[in-house]
Amino acid sequence: MTDQSMMRVLAGEPAAAPPVWLMRQAGRYLPEYRQLRQSAESFLDLCYTPKLAVEITLQPVRRFDFDAAILFSDILVVPDGMGMTVGFEDGHGPVLVPVQDAGDLAALDPDRAAAHCAPVYEAVSAVRAALAPEKTLIGFAGGPWTVATYAVEGGSSRTFETVKAWMWRDPAGFGRLIDMLTDTTVDHLSRQIEAGADCVQIFESWAGVLAEPEFRRYVVGPTRRIVEALRARHPAAPVIGFPRGAGSLIGDYAAATGVTAVGLDTGVPLAQARAIQKSVPVQGNLDPLLLAAGGAALEDRVEEIVSGLAGGPHIFNLGHGIVPQTPPDHVAELVAAVRGAA
Amino acid sequence: MTDQSMMRVLAGEPAAAPPVWLMRQAGRYLPEYRQLRQSAESFLDLCYTPKLAVEITLQPVRRFDFDAAILFSDILVVPDGMGMTVGFEDGHGPVLVPVQDAGDLAALDPDRAAAHCAPVYEAVSAVRAALAPEKTLIGFAGGPWTVATYAVEGGSSRTFETVKAWMWRDPAGFGRLIDMLTDTTVDHLSRQIEAGADCVQIFESWAGVLAEPEFRRYVVGPTRRIVEALRARHPAAPVIGFPRGAGSLIGDYAAATGVTAVGLDTGVPLAQARAIQKSVPVQGNLDPLLLAAGGAALEDRVEEIVSGLAGGPHIFNLGHGIVPQTPPDHVAELVAAVRGAA
Repeated sequence: MTDQSMMRVLAGEPAAAPPVWLMRQAGRYLPEYRQLRQSAESFLDLCYTPKLAVEITLQPVRRFDFDAAILFSDILVVPDGMGMTVGFEDGHGPVLVPVQDAGDLAALDPDRAAAHCAPVYEAVSAVRAALAPEKTLIGFAGGPWTVATYAVEGGSSRTFETVKAWMWRDPAGFGRLIDMLTDTTVDHLSRQIEAGADCVQIFESWAGVLAEPEFRRYVVGPTRRIVEALRARHPAAPVIGFPRGAGSLIGDYAAATGVTAVGLDTGVPLAQARAIQKSVPVQGNLDPLLLAAGGAALEDRVEEIVSGLAGGPHIFNLGHGIVPQTPPDHVAELVAAVRGAA
Repeated sequence: MTDQSMMRVLAGEPAAAPPVWLMRQAGRYLPEYRQLRQSAESFLDLCYTPKLAVEITLQPVRRFDFDAAILFSDILVVPDGMGMTVGFEDGHGPVLVPVQDAGDLAALDPDRAAAHCAPVYEAVSAVRAALAPEKTLIGFAGGPWTVATYAVEGGSSRTFETVKAWMWRDPAGFGRLIDMLTDTTVDHLSRQIEAGADCVQIFESWAGVLAEPEFRRYVVGPTRRIVEALRARHPAAPVIGFPRGAGSLIGDYAAATGVTAVGLDTGVPLAQARAIQKSVPVQGNLDPLLLAAGGAALEDRVEEIVSGLAGGPHIFNLGHGIVPQTPPDHVAELVAAVRGAA
């Protein structure tokens, strides 16, 4: 484990050059992914077919020599495993039969999630076996709030109107959904660690649409429960929290949840990042659209982020997932620049 | 002027009960607006027909006794006035013929904006004449960055990919667009003040999609120029800046731009708001969806915001525009609660 540069940074040691991986590094911007995509009927089939999930996970590490692999999977395998009906239409995002009241909750069965996700854990083991020992394998799950937004809205949302309405109208009922997702997420992450993931990341992609009271109740509280439960079972496995859009509350989030490290979205200024770095390692935060754009602005910003965060533990990453139109050449240049800028 | 509770708060005096108005208070959630909407061919026709714009501006003040009227208009009258072709399709947002390079810029004519917007200034004068003297009249414009996103993307965007690509590829060319918008915005706000607006607000609705360097260059810089130019011409007219999504940079924004007061989006925690209040008055920041939802959660939050910000100058508002599905009864209850909670 201490042979892995990313794990050393997660343990609080600054590195000569920051380890680098990219959110959604396995995916549509890679021609080899697009080719493999044809082998499966649906997006979720890719996630549930270990041979394909393993190959897709390894593709970007092979091509770019990233310091970490992140399991190719999706945050919606958890609700799918609990019995919500999840589908993906190419180019249109996920579609779920929405869960909107106590009756819908009663129809869910969190106990079936583990068996349903068995191929996911099988893929984790196979990736760990195939991956060079100095590379870190990252497992992941969505944060309960973020998964709840998809479950209640029935897919992506611009307004979050339905999920917020339930949250305010019936906090007890909505709290039960959050609790079910929290428990199932603990189990899902725990099984990934048992299967060979070195660390895990919690993607709270929609943290930013909540005001502080709801952020504390539905993001910080459940994340703390997840971190505590994982610590008890797997004390050596770091947990990275990524509360996208948390703004000035990121420092509070890091302190109150007990996450090992915190992922920074694009909007976090370097001065704020340095303040957080005094407590926990940080990960981030290049604008994914700047990686897609390339050019002198990209070079300048990479240098700025690397040198700006060199005084403490830092893992280089984007501030959000890589976008499909990103030229793979830009990614290769990025990795070289991150390693060269240090 | 000092008879107006909102102007007193903008001058830094805390009030017994905060003055209250709501972003987009004149609009689709009101049946009397929906009825008037039928009188005009297009949304922009409403803006350019003083008789209709005046009536729509006054409707919510009449119904709810708000402390301020905000001119019924749109941030896109500025690019429309400069010769970009702006259309609105009901329910689909604005559509513009996009401006994406130096050639497109050359076709614009900022000098025609003032004549084009003459009906807007006429509406301001008529509203001021009709409005009770203790009510504040707010003029407004979009921030140059926000208007540029619509101009370059050709409408609303989820990704801001095209505008960011131009910004990074050709900072000089993109800077000229921002400069043109900045100058025209100064003129547009100045003419609203001359016509009778007591103060103005700059809506930088998409400030939150920029990383810090671009935020400083394309939001803070142009806003400072606007504030300085308005101060020189109209020293008594307060300028409220609303950099939505600025996160931990809001305090810096307030200090660096010189705005009189700062609008807070829903994500700003009250502790951060209180810190900002030590320098400038704040305005905000109830979640518009909580106003639409109503109930006990709404009552609790209103009390929390009012009492939480009672120690300094505070204007009660939403953290973003009111949503069309908001029951007007909730708005009446909100105004009563704000005045009763103090």
